Amino acid sequence: MTSFVFRRQVTVEFGHCDPAGIVFITRLFQYFDTSTWMLFEAALGVDQRDFNATFGILPLVDVRASCMKPLAFGEVIEIASRVTEFRRSSFHVEHHIRIDGELAVDGGETRVWAVRNKDDPEKITARPVPDEVIARFER
Amino acid sequence: MTSFVFRRQVTVEFGHCDPAGIVFITRLFQYFDTSTWMLFEAALGVDQRDFNATFGILPLVDVRASCMKPLAFGEVIEIASRVTEFRRSSFHVEHHIRIDGELAVDGGETRVWAVRNKDDPEKITARPVPDEVIARFER
Amino acid sequence: MTSFVFRRQVTVEFGHCDPAGIVFITRLFQYFDTSTWMLFEAALGVDQRDFNATFGILPLVDVRASCMKPLAFGEVIEIASRVTEFRRSSFHVEHHIRIDGELAVDGGETRVWAVRNKDDPEKITARPVPDEVIARFER
Amino acid sequence: MTSFVFRRQVTVEFGHCDPAGIVFITRLFQYFDTSTWMLFEAALGVDQRDFNATFGILPLVDVRASCMKPLAFGEVIEIASRVTEFRRSSFHVEHHIRIDGELAVDGGETRVWAVRNKDDPEKITARPVPDEVIARFER
Repeated sequence: MTSFVFRRQVTVEFGHCDPAGIVFITRLFQYFDTSTWMLFEAALGVDQRDFNATFGILPLVDVRASCMKPLAFGEVIEIASRVTEFRRSSFHVEHHIRIDGELAVDGGETRVWAVRNKDDPEKITARPVPDEVIARFER
Repeated sequence: MTSFVFRRQVTVEFGHCDPAGIVFITRLFQYFDTSTWMLFEAALGVDQRDFNATFGILPLVDVRASCMKPLAFGEVIEIASRVTEFRRSSFHVEHHIRIDGELAVDGGETRVWAVRNKDDPEKITARPVPDEVIARFER
Repeated sequence: MTSFVFRRQVTVEFGHCDPAGIVFITRLFQYFDTSTWMLFEAALGVDQRDFNATFGILPLVDVRASCMKPLAFGEVIEIASRVTEFRRSSFHVEHHIRIDGELAVDGGETRVWAVRNKDDPEKITARPVPDEVIARFER
Repeated sequence: MTSFVFRRQVTVEFGHCDPAGIVFITRLFQYFDTSTWMLFEAALGVDQRDFNATFGILPLVDVRASCMKPLAFGEVIEIASRVTEFRRSSFHVEHHIRIDGELAVDGGETRVWAVRNKDDPEKITARPVPDEVIARFER
């Protein structure tokens, strides 16, 4: 487990909520995806827009979420994100959403470290995660 | 106004609706966008995936919607879409959403007929709408 | 594992896709959620709109997806959904997305069988899944 | 035109963008809707969650957007929102999205000032916008 944690606050928007008045499941994964981009931007000091050119792409292979407490319209939630494991050419990120300090959603995602083929940008190839990348997640 | 009308039925999904239990405004424009793709696919006989390569891209410049009647979860709506005007290098599409034959939403969008620059795909250039394209919308 | 499988075809819409040109992760869970509603509607013969009044609500507690193959704009995918287990007051649904018969996404969700309190609709209470409900998933 | 302008910055998220790499049209209306909620919250000093109970609901009747410049992934945009007109029982909000001070999107929406019927919450009735509400938008 790496030590660098990226935290941000999000206010639940009206349009994020379903007829039950709570955050619709799809939105959790929007929150997670954006937090992963921000986590890498913060850890590596690379603007999101330059990330692909500098490092590669990070296709999702596994995602999950466990919901302990519904998130309601107007609530301010805190999302804490951390790389829990770097494997050879993939890594796992955990996302914890808390309301008033209480864990509401426990989520996770596994992504591949990959680059596009120069000759055929439609094709991607998994690559070992560079050591200097891993080092940046230790603070 | 061209004579070819593309019609499709959509069932309003739970996740399309907001805490008031009705279709959230953003979804109307998802419905419209997809109907425009399907309208061009049907009129021109070109698969959506090949459209850009064959003809070009169709960036939106203006969109609007007037809501007369809310659309609720589980309702079956009919979306009728038609090109109402071809201008030199743009065109206007109207979208009418009806429930049980009654007009619920009256929407419209204006798009530019454009191609990507071969040397710099980030740049796009407006082009006259080809006559053979316009002809396909008259049935 | 119950025997009733609900299958539907979905064409991947332009607005479902991200800058990489493939279905954005959030959309998978929109597909799954809607398939679960349709599965229950088909198995129980109850209109989605009457479901809550007749049976109760089905809050999500766990969701997951494993992505084997990206889904691209314009592709026709098949989603097959089935209740794999009824527990006392919850159940698990598996969703398989296939392209040309090949498994592309393997997803799942666990939901609670619950009802709203009559005196306080904000509060919900888990209830045993009725035997007659379970019976309808055996065909 | 009222004088109170609500401004906020939004960073365009990866999941807001379409295969062309720019903000998909539906997201503009998510930005606008949330800005309207925040505008009223700021002007009236009422938490979004208490708004309906205190004042009423604000169903959309007309929305529109004109796109002058595409919004790209990772860009920081500024959204400025202002009530341009209060009519008897409706009002108009304009939303201007700027990038580096340059107008990129010019949008607008008309909403009805309405309350739910106490006896039948499914029904809503338009009401005159209270004078004390209008006064709060003059600063």
